[in-house]
Amino acid sequence: MTEPLFVIPLWADLIAVGLGGVQGALFASGFRGQRRLDLLGVAIIGIVMGMGGGLIRDLLLNATPVTLQSNWYLLTATLAALLGMLLAGVFQRLNALIVGLDAVVIGLFGAFGTSKALALGLPVVPAVFVGVCSAVGGGILRDMIMGLPVAIMHVGSLYAVAAGAGCTVVALSHAFGAPLVIAAIAGLIVTTVIRLLAVLFDISLPEQRALYRRKVAVETSAIPIIKP
Amino acid sequence: MTEPLFVIPLWADLIAVGLGGVQGALFASGFRGQRRLDLLGVAIIGIVMGMGGGLIRDLLLNATPVTLQSNWYLLTATLAALLGMLLAGVFQRLNALIVGLDAVVIGLFGAFGTSKALALGLPVVPAVFVGVCSAVGGGILRDMIMGLPVAIMHVGSLYAVAAGAGCTVVALSHAFGAPLVIAAIAGLIVTTVIRLLAVLFDISLPEQRALYRRKVAVETSAIPIIKP
Amino acid sequence: MTEPLFVIPLWADLIAVGLGGVQGALFASGFRGQRRLDLLGVAIIGIVMGMGGGLIRDLLLNATPVTLQSNWYLLTATLAALLGMLLAGVFQRLNALIVGLDAVVIGLFGAFGTSKALALGLPVVPAVFVGVCSAVGGGILRDMIMGLPVAIMHVGSLYAVAAGAGCTVVALSHAFGAPLVIAAIAGLIVTTVIRLLAVLFDISLPEQRALYRRKVAVETSAIPIIKP
Repeated sequence: MTEPLFVIPLWADLIAVGLGGVQGALFASGFRGQRRLDLLGVAIIGIVMGMGGGLIRDLLLNATPVTLQSNWYLLTATLAALLGMLLAGVFQRLNALIVGLDAVVIGLFGAFGTSKALALGLPVVPAVFVGVCSAVGGGILRDMIMGLPVAIMHVGSLYAVAAGAGCTVVALSHAFGAPLVIAAIAGLIVTTVIRLLAVLFDISLPEQRALYRRKVAVETSAIPIIKP
Repeated sequence: MTEPLFVIPLWADLIAVGLGGVQGALFASGFRGQRRLDLLGVAIIGIVMGMGGGLIRDLLLNATPVTLQSNWYLLTATLAALLGMLLAGVFQRLNALIVGLDAVVIGLFGAFGTSKALALGLPVVPAVFVGVCSAVGGGILRDMIMGLPVAIMHVGSLYAVAAGAGCTVVALSHAFGAPLVIAAIAGLIVTTVIRLLAVLFDISLPEQRALYRRKVAVETSAIPIIKP
Repeated sequence: MTEPLFVIPLWADLIAVGLGGVQGALFASGFRGQRRLDLLGVAIIGIVMGMGGGLIRDLLLNATPVTLQSNWYLLTATLAALLGMLLAGVFQRLNALIVGLDAVVIGLFGAFGTSKALALGLPVVPAVFVGVCSAVGGGILRDMIMGLPVAIMHVGSLYAVAAGAGCTVVALSHAFGAPLVIAAIAGLIVTTVIRLLAVLFDISLPEQRALYRRKVAVETSAIPIIKP
């Protein structure tokens, strides 16, 4: 239970929280019909996406949640969620923005999660696991709270694989002697690029393609995937 | 990881746990048809509602869960759940009782959560956040376990807003020098009154009204909101 | 926050993790149609079932998650999940294997959870609670991630009751002076036997039978229970 010597700079952490908040609010604003959320609901999803990754990371590490030690995290996530709502009103075609932001956000949370786990002395494999949970955990929480099918189980496009690859790069670079900051930046880039390439070229694991198509159709029409 | 100097008195904590247990069991007993729960299911929901708020608070604070340090919490929650089942059998019109108890329970958990967070040295904003999570967390867990739409996202009547207002009162009173006990009592009253007024006068945030109506209809007929 | 003097031997822990991983992957492989999972999804469910119980136990105890302190846990869970996928391809009739493994897994996690809680000084009632959460928590997580009705709320056959009885045996044996190892073995046997007998003779609590039948039909046809 010693305090970590490694500290993610506040500004970097807040960038991740802010981008997560914007992305969450953009995502939540896109729902129509029965699933349409009010302002508070959109803000909650923004906060969940902005803060969820860090909270899950610290829970898994049994560390005091950094995101609750300063006022800035929640203020940033909330303001970012409001910004996301405004953007959703301004732009008509949001999908590219949502996907792009998401790729950066999972890259950031994955890199931060793995780095912190390594700094706390975890072995390579669980450090990668903590990074992946940190990267995809916010989205899992979001889907469970919104009653959606959990995206990571059904959406294709190598979502978790991208996070896993980036976190592995962080852990291996660190194991081979690279400074954590360099390792984290390399991991961030790997995750973001893989995720974007996968979306651009519609690459997915076997069996996922059909589900992915159906999911997209479902989200567009706001009819849930659970139907007879 | 120092032990908190501030300790919520056991009797006050047990009142919150007990009322939560009764309310959870009343809520769960109301389900008919496909969602009807057996005795164990009703007891589980009672325990989740009675203990969930405190567990979530202590997880967020990285504190040893107080509710697991004594036999009394679980015994109280279980007995309260049994009492709730009996009451559900005795009274025909439960709705007023469920809503009234719920208002007091979110007020209690919100006030306790915020107070403990402040006592552990958290800044104002995250202290309010911990209080709100503590107030509404039990209900979120309940809805996710029962496969219901998460109420806080869809039910109107200022549910989370009431919790947030009360927790803010606790944090601000404390910041302006009021003793935590007084601050907590003020917060409890604010949350409970706002919540009850919101229900009485059917006040809600923009966009929520339609969803709220649909949700109530759904609960009455026990047909889930997720349908084509 | 002292480190526990009591340590579950790594090999025993890994057996539980491995069996959980096999069982989770077998379960997840059984889905057809809309819920069919790809390789990654099956592996995730295997990891959730293999590691979930231990993670939930350590979260509730505010202990550093043991499963993340060594590479072996995740490697074992992942390899076990792959093995489970192979087995699912080899055997046509898996149900007996899934149910049998499940009975052993909840017995192991329940016994380990209760033992560790007692070793950390928790009173009897919360120690049993931690054991039960540890036993059934992996399955709850699995169901929530897969968007299934949470089995413990709806499936009959004394699922949670079996876990509770075994954990109570552990706690009471220990209270009456038995060494924790003997107490844990006794609890494991009690849980496994009750669970298997309940399945064999189709015993359930009042009100559960109808739901159980419907659930089984639902799983067979892969049409979710949530339908109009």
